[in-house]
Amino acid sequence: MDTPKRRRSATRARLLEGALEVFAERGFHGASVEDICDRAGFTRGAFYSNFSSKDELALALFQATTDRLLEQIGALLPDLANQPGTLLDAVLGLLDDAAPDQRQWHLISTEFTLHALRDPDAAEALVRQRRLFRERLTELVEEITKTSGLRLSVPAEQFVRLVIAVHEGARSQSLLEPAEVPAGSLEHTFLPMVLASVSRS
Amino acid sequence: MDTPKRRRSATRARLLEGALEVFAERGFHGASVEDICDRAGFTRGAFYSNFSSKDELALALFQATTDRLLEQIGALLPDLANQPGTLLDAVLGLLDDAAPDQRQWHLISTEFTLHALRDPDAAEALVRQRRLFRERLTELVEEITKTSGLRLSVPAEQFVRLVIAVHEGARSQSLLEPAEVPAGSLEHTFLPMVLASVSRS
Repeated sequence: MDTPKRRRSATRARLLEGALEVFAERGFHGASVEDICDRAGFTRGAFYSNFSSKDELALALFQATTDRLLEQIGALLPDLANQPGTLLDAVLGLLDDAAPDQRQWHLISTEFTLHALRDPDAAEALVRQRRLFRERLTELVEEITKTSGLRLSVPAEQFVRLVIAVHEGARSQSLLEPAEVPAGSLEHTFLPMVLASVSRS
Repeated sequence: MDTPKRRRSATRARLLEGALEVFAERGFHGASVEDICDRAGFTRGAFYSNFSSKDELALALFQATTDRLLEQIGALLPDLANQPGTLLDAVLGLLDDAAPDQRQWHLISTEFTLHALRDPDAAEALVRQRRLFRERLTELVEEITKTSGLRLSVPAEQFVRLVIAVHEGARSQSLLEPAEVPAGSLEHTFLPMVLASVSRS
């Protein structure tokens, strides 16, 4: 049934989808609320009844990514517990799958991070969302290492921070030089070495 | 003596310095040529007799950073050959010292990289400059490992790519959460493990 609540949720989803495209094309600062409304086929009234600002919409995009990640972790956990060797593949796979389009997501998330480095309110919101994302990945790592009888010589969260740093840094190189740095190549070459170094059974 | 050539070089240096500040404050796209001229105390005429565009000026900033790095490598090499244990410290130190202000440099270099991901000409120029930077670091790594009788099980350039990826990814976390991720902490915790994994004597 086409209830008002369902319509509202569909409007929101289309605005998010439109914003993802427009941000990737024109940048966070270059994209206006009007551009996003045009792309999604809505009026500015529809926009402002869903989001108070462009910042709030960008944060909703991050939230949607985090939510998708949480769902995927929930679905994966039961299987992973029986295949501890796949810890890194699981974590890296989640980072890749969290965003359907890596180029688009890199542009948007990097740009919003730069915005946050100049705007304390955006920084607070972004740090909160990144923390949530990191905490879930940390739980996943802890769960798998526990199940497989491994202990890490560093806090699991530090390891997750490293994985995120390598992933984000490598993605930038892959997008600039796709032939020289195939997506995921640095992560898959070097992170298993780190995991072996910090693991004790 | 205040020759025309020396004046020109001083004008260029002041424009670069002004651009560094204005880019960091307003972003690459937010900063106009006029803003940069105002900050440096020059007319637009002076700007355009030194740089054909804002892009060219941004690339000159990268070039200046690379040049500083090359000088530092040249100065360090004779000493490092006798202290092979300091390989990583040397490489990480160079990455840190190449930019006097990490926050400013992160904002500018990340933003120009995003610009390059949308503009093929900027991408070509940036890839060329990053390659030069990477090749010099690779020579440094090769020189030190050779002198110290070590062999790497991966190409030195791959290791350098990892160091750059970790450095850039970690810097983003450090700037967002300085108390939780002190600058350099992820690099110094994890990169020695990777170096140990890929080294054979």
